Amino acid sequence: MNLNINTNDKGNLSIGGADALELAEEYGTPLYATDENRIRENFQRLNNAFIKHYENFQIFYACKANTNLSIIRILEEEGCGIDAVSPGEVYAGIMAGMDPQKILFTGNNVKDEEMDFVIKSGARLNVDSVSQLKRLAKIVNPEGFKISFRVNPMVGAGHHEHTITGGKKSKFGIMDKEAVEVYSMAKEMGFDPVGIHMHIGSGFLDIGPFKLAVNTLMDIAGEITQKTGIKFEFIDFGGGMGIPYTPDENILDIEPIAEEIIKIYKSKLEEYDMGEPTMCLEPGRYLVGDSTYLLARVNSVKEGYKKFIGVDAGFNTLIRPAMYDSYHHIVIADKPEAKTTQTVDVAGNVCESGDLFGRDRPLPDVKEGDLIAILNSGAYSFSMASRYNSRPMPAEVLVNNGEVDLIRERENLADLFSNQIVPPRLLKKD
Amino acid sequence: MNLNINTNDKGNLSIGGADALELAEEYGTPLYATDENRIRENFQRLNNAFIKHYENFQIFYACKANTNLSIIRILEEEGCGIDAVSPGEVYAGIMAGMDPQKILFTGNNVKDEEMDFVIKSGARLNVDSVSQLKRLAKIVNPEGFKISFRVNPMVGAGHHEHTITGGKKSKFGIMDKEAVEVYSMAKEMGFDPVGIHMHIGSGFLDIGPFKLAVNTLMDIAGEITQKTGIKFEFIDFGGGMGIPYTPDENILDIEPIAEEIIKIYKSKLEEYDMGEPTMCLEPGRYLVGDSTYLLARVNSVKEGYKKFIGVDAGFNTLIRPAMYDSYHHIVIADKPEAKTTQTVDVAGNVCESGDLFGRDRPLPDVKEGDLIAILNSGAYSFSMASRYNSRPMPAEVLVNNGEVDLIRERENLADLFSNQIVPPRLLKKD
Repeated sequence: MNLNINTNDKGNLSIGGADALELAEEYGTPLYATDENRIRENFQRLNNAFIKHYENFQIFYACKANTNLSIIRILEEEGCGIDAVSPGEVYAGIMAGMDPQKILFTGNNVKDEEMDFVIKSGARLNVDSVSQLKRLAKIVNPEGFKISFRVNPMVGAGHHEHTITGGKKSKFGIMDKEAVEVYSMAKEMGFDPVGIHMHIGSGFLDIGPFKLAVNTLMDIAGEITQKTGIKFEFIDFGGGMGIPYTPDENILDIEPIAEEIIKIYKSKLEEYDMGEPTMCLEPGRYLVGDSTYLLARVNSVKEGYKKFIGVDAGFNTLIRPAMYDSYHHIVIADKPEAKTTQTVDVAGNVCESGDLFGRDRPLPDVKEGDLIAILNSGAYSFSMASRYNSRPMPAEVLVNNGEVDLIRERENLADLFSNQIVPPRLLKKD
Repeated sequence: MNLNINTNDKGNLSIGGADALELAEEYGTPLYATDENRIRENFQRLNNAFIKHYENFQIFYACKANTNLSIIRILEEEGCGIDAVSPGEVYAGIMAGMDPQKILFTGNNVKDEEMDFVIKSGARLNVDSVSQLKRLAKIVNPEGFKISFRVNPMVGAGHHEHTITGGKKSKFGIMDKEAVEVYSMAKEMGFDPVGIHMHIGSGFLDIGPFKLAVNTLMDIAGEITQKTGIKFEFIDFGGGMGIPYTPDENILDIEPIAEEIIKIYKSKLEEYDMGEPTMCLEPGRYLVGDSTYLLARVNSVKEGYKKFIGVDAGFNTLIRPAMYDSYHHIVIADKPEAKTTQTVDVAGNVCESGDLFGRDRPLPDVKEGDLIAILNSGAYSFSMASRYNSRPMPAEVLVNNGEVDLIRERENLADLFSNQIVPPRLLKKD
């Protein structure tokens, strides 16, 4: 099975050794439940595959996928850094005990005060535009200040149009053709440009475009080295490696991919005489996506013109199906591998028709009170959740070999109003 | 002009008599700024148009559009009730001082404990399914307990496929053809079914489908009255009335619409001998949509293969353009009516390519540091906001004839971690 489905001796879904039904019973629903070891395994598989062929290798976890502090702590313990896209993520990394030098900040349309915050935190700064470079020079003394640039290699890939971040339509990075000029400019301003970075998209399972982009970025980096004399300390190929969401999609075979990428990398380093800069990757989904299950309770079974299985989560809890039309595999927690007997819509509890977790989905028999598990809810799931429809944010638990910790408490109704102030003139009632 | 753009004597955008530039300066960006009087005007225009022709008329504000307590207070002062879709919204109504009898709860896939909460609050319960009815009978003594049902008249309308909530594909309500049977069943169980409700969609500017649905629901209600003897206390046609988002869309001409709807209503009441039940509407967007502006600062102007105006808000702040491809008109706050000179993409600061507030948008000259205002940000804007990319939630201000109140404080970085608990074993550092 390409999807992460394990059962225990009762035949129930097991999450890191804990029984999904017991988790839901104890912590309520909707509930995000994460298997700690799966994250460690994902990291180690990826890290080992690359480091075997090239020692100067560093993974930065794209923590926008899941910014829970405990999850960042786990990855820090494994030796991972983070890719941060906002001051909040830099702050999360530091709170999780990360060495600031292992935090690489790549913002987009960054405010001056945000850059100031990042600099004071000691994190590394990856510059997205000439505009940002010029503003940075006013905030910090450029002399010897280490920076890198995000370069758009004009190759894109991803699971949805919205997540393709390379190519001519992209708002990210400096253009391929202006790269040499921008690095020269930075050098002249006094900066020490030590890195180069790309990120072409998110959730791809076909490695072709990524290889092409690696090739292209290495040529750009090589040209910069030859024309400006800059010796790169690190070359960062970003993230985007996908995971299977449907039972038909394949798992990326990471060993041969690593071998192939490193082969390109080494040959380009040699071709352009670039030394041995650290190679970096910035996976998010790959590390945490399949570690987590969203557990929801079936509240209502409704037969009308269509049959609906209604659950107590909605797109406020997990927005990917409603926003990107993403497939998330759904199992019944007390019979995760039961035969399908019907085709139903699995509906959330938000007041919008688009609030469906599954459309025309084959499922086994389901009755009210059953527990469902939505797979692959570790990435872009809790981190994109909202309080829409005035629903408090759900709880998160972490399971480590059957031991369960509550890592985020469920919000209560009062939390919805925590920052509100009704003006006294409106408070008065006649 | 069909859009709500006002300028002051400096030529700057005026929001309820306050200067947009001064608001941004004092409260920071991104900032939601609401014109209180616009909400009152919208309510009064709609209410007066209907009440003129039929006195038993009550508006329930669909508060999922904007659940800010101060905004609910304003509408309560005007005599408005609320349409609530979750316990959190019922709670918001009560906190805002609303008579519980003016709170109508219409949930979807409702948990038993949620119904229990609603009943204890004293709000009215609108039942969505037979499943819910049966569960309700276990929670409350049905004898004389007043309920209504949401009926799907099999007519839908809306600005996006996701917001069409009537029709055969919809997860909402009981079916047209089962209505008589369900009302009979409820009566036999002892319930007192006093209301009937529909909601066909959101954001429509063509009133045709709404009229058709009103006709249909009245026929269903009439049939129920004739076959079961039920006398309705209220008939609720839901919401969905749209507002213009683009400069080309028309404003709904509410006077003749009201006249026409009431005419159908009265004639059907007579036809089926239904007495004079209260007619209800549940507008959300219509009341608050054009009252609010999202103010954002231009951080970066970037010319590449395309030209990007980068601002300090993102789809975490306002998701409609990224999620529904919705158009929101954008003006430059110090020259809201200046001539357009260029075509640009207005990009947010979230790390996704889809994070654009405007694609190929004609705009006047814009430079870094300029303030933009995104119009019609009163409905489904703050209420759908998230902390994605670890960005704290923005602030909200309310302007009343130039007087400004901060009605929601901006979150800070610590708020992002407020409910998290890192297990001690993970806290330890070697």
